[in-house]
Amino acid sequence: MSKKYVVGIDLGGTNARAAAVDRDLHIAARNRCSTPAADGFAAVMRSLAQLTDELLRDAKIDKSEVGGLCIACPGPLDGDQGIVIHAPNLQWFDVPVVKTLGDLTGLKTILENDANAAGYGEFIAGAGKGAQTMIMMTLGTGVGGAVVIDGQLRRGPSWTGGELGHTVILDGGRQCACGQRGCLEAYASATSTVGRFVEARQAGRPSSLTAAAVSCREIFTAAKEGDELAKEIVAGTAHYIAVAASNLANLLNPDRLVISGGPIQAGDFLFDQIRAAYVNRPFARPVQHMQILSATLGEDAGVVGAAGCALRLLA
Amino acid sequence: MSKKYVVGIDLGGTNARAAAVDRDLHIAARNRCSTPAADGFAAVMRSLAQLTDELLRDAKIDKSEVGGLCIACPGPLDGDQGIVIHAPNLQWFDVPVVKTLGDLTGLKTILENDANAAGYGEFIAGAGKGAQTMIMMTLGTGVGGAVVIDGQLRRGPSWTGGELGHTVILDGGRQCACGQRGCLEAYASATSTVGRFVEARQAGRPSSLTAAAVSCREIFTAAKEGDELAKEIVAGTAHYIAVAASNLANLLNPDRLVISGGPIQAGDFLFDQIRAAYVNRPFARPVQHMQILSATLGEDAGVVGAAGCALRLLA
Repeated sequence: MSKKYVVGIDLGGTNARAAAVDRDLHIAARNRCSTPAADGFAAVMRSLAQLTDELLRDAKIDKSEVGGLCIACPGPLDGDQGIVIHAPNLQWFDVPVVKTLGDLTGLKTILENDANAAGYGEFIAGAGKGAQTMIMMTLGTGVGGAVVIDGQLRRGPSWTGGELGHTVILDGGRQCACGQRGCLEAYASATSTVGRFVEARQAGRPSSLTAAAVSCREIFTAAKEGDELAKEIVAGTAHYIAVAASNLANLLNPDRLVISGGPIQAGDFLFDQIRAAYVNRPFARPVQHMQILSATLGEDAGVVGAAGCALRLLA
Repeated sequence: MSKKYVVGIDLGGTNARAAAVDRDLHIAARNRCSTPAADGFAAVMRSLAQLTDELLRDAKIDKSEVGGLCIACPGPLDGDQGIVIHAPNLQWFDVPVVKTLGDLTGLKTILENDANAAGYGEFIAGAGKGAQTMIMMTLGTGVGGAVVIDGQLRRGPSWTGGELGHTVILDGGRQCACGQRGCLEAYASATSTVGRFVEARQAGRPSSLTAAAVSCREIFTAAKEGDELAKEIVAGTAHYIAVAASNLANLLNPDRLVISGGPIQAGDFLFDQIRAAYVNRPFARPVQHMQILSATLGEDAGVVGAAGCALRLLA
């Protein structure tokens, strides 16, 4: 038995990343390619097979040494069936990812949700390392999440575990893309931060940011520079994250909440506000127990997590 | 090795219940006593030791056949230290339950949170039987909860896992006893159902219920009989439960949500409204997957769950 490595692939609508890792989670090799999404499912699968071949060749790893491959994809998906049910960015409906990529690579292949893979990556090799139970919250266009309990990624029978962004924190509140009102995503995503800012400005609130199109990063910068409206909007984002953090602490009593995504580039400016809003929540014991940390793996999280999931193929 | 039985005790502020169960969770014997709460911690411990002795004697079980005892107490508590940190109904602060009851009974003793024990009871022997992952929601003066994931009760390092009632569903909303605003407990508890009814009536809404003091049961009865205000209040309770149910489905993708407590006596009248409000939530896969069921064990849930927790002492 000379299976020493596994391959992790993180497939996004724009780029795909791959890494080969050993049993100790050391990254032996990594590479990436652009995703030929417009060329359709078969073309994407072929490019990922080629990416894998190049990865192993460059690292001088023989395929016989590779125990398997895990591909992290946007969902919803069914990991038991090996199918992505719907990936809007890729225009995929019910595509047999596991069978197709397995046939093309000749490797034992499994499928994982991309947000779950990123969360698991932080758990095994990033800001969650050493914790038993960790929640990941990813702030972007939406709010993604992953739940790891006692070392186990919570996938659930529908492969939808960890959909933190669509937990309601303000019933009847802001419209969420999912159809509900008041989801965390409708308040704490980068998109919502921009939306709340623009709405307040349209309602007549003055701001130093006067351009019609404003980015989340610009709002954070203006807040740091003292713009009152931007400060208020960022404080709101921190408040809503703290409410969700309190909910998680009370429901699951985790060791850590790890936050990732563009807004974490604001560093302590954001995290100090989140922690200040969070520490005052009631139920001192679980609240004090849970640390709120910035993710550390950046864009590597997904591919590391996918590789971590693939490790079970070596067992 | 002739350890065939374990003992479960469910300690409440008014009554204590005990049961002896075998390895297959069959209840060999059960009894109960009133809790001498006013006489202090030592008196309560002595009465529980006596309850245990009587239980075993009546069932003709020799103590040498008993592998251990689990006592379910109100919390917060620390099961690792065997201490109840604070039990308001019993006026306990930092009391060494495990050591004291273990010394008095001569049995290996462990401690469990009462809401968790009740949830675990439903999981192993009630409405959750056969599920892998189940959440319990208990509607009473407050809203209690328990989380069982892949067969494991989620206690957490602070022994506070499952505090479902203090997840915020309407940030900035109704004041909760915990100090937060907008907790599920502030909307879905029996107390809140009464509170929302009384407030609406005080605000001038007419109702057939005119007595100053109204119970949750009376509101449900009036709603069944067509009282418009009562119908609206009960529909609100069902709506808030459905919001929390949707949150749980999205975050944890459980198989079942089991609801217990006084209001479930309304049966289908309540559950039909909860399910109707729930089934329209987005994210069809986890929502459709999770069944919402009425608890079936009634007041036995805690003692059965405590006994279930004690089974690990036989391992």
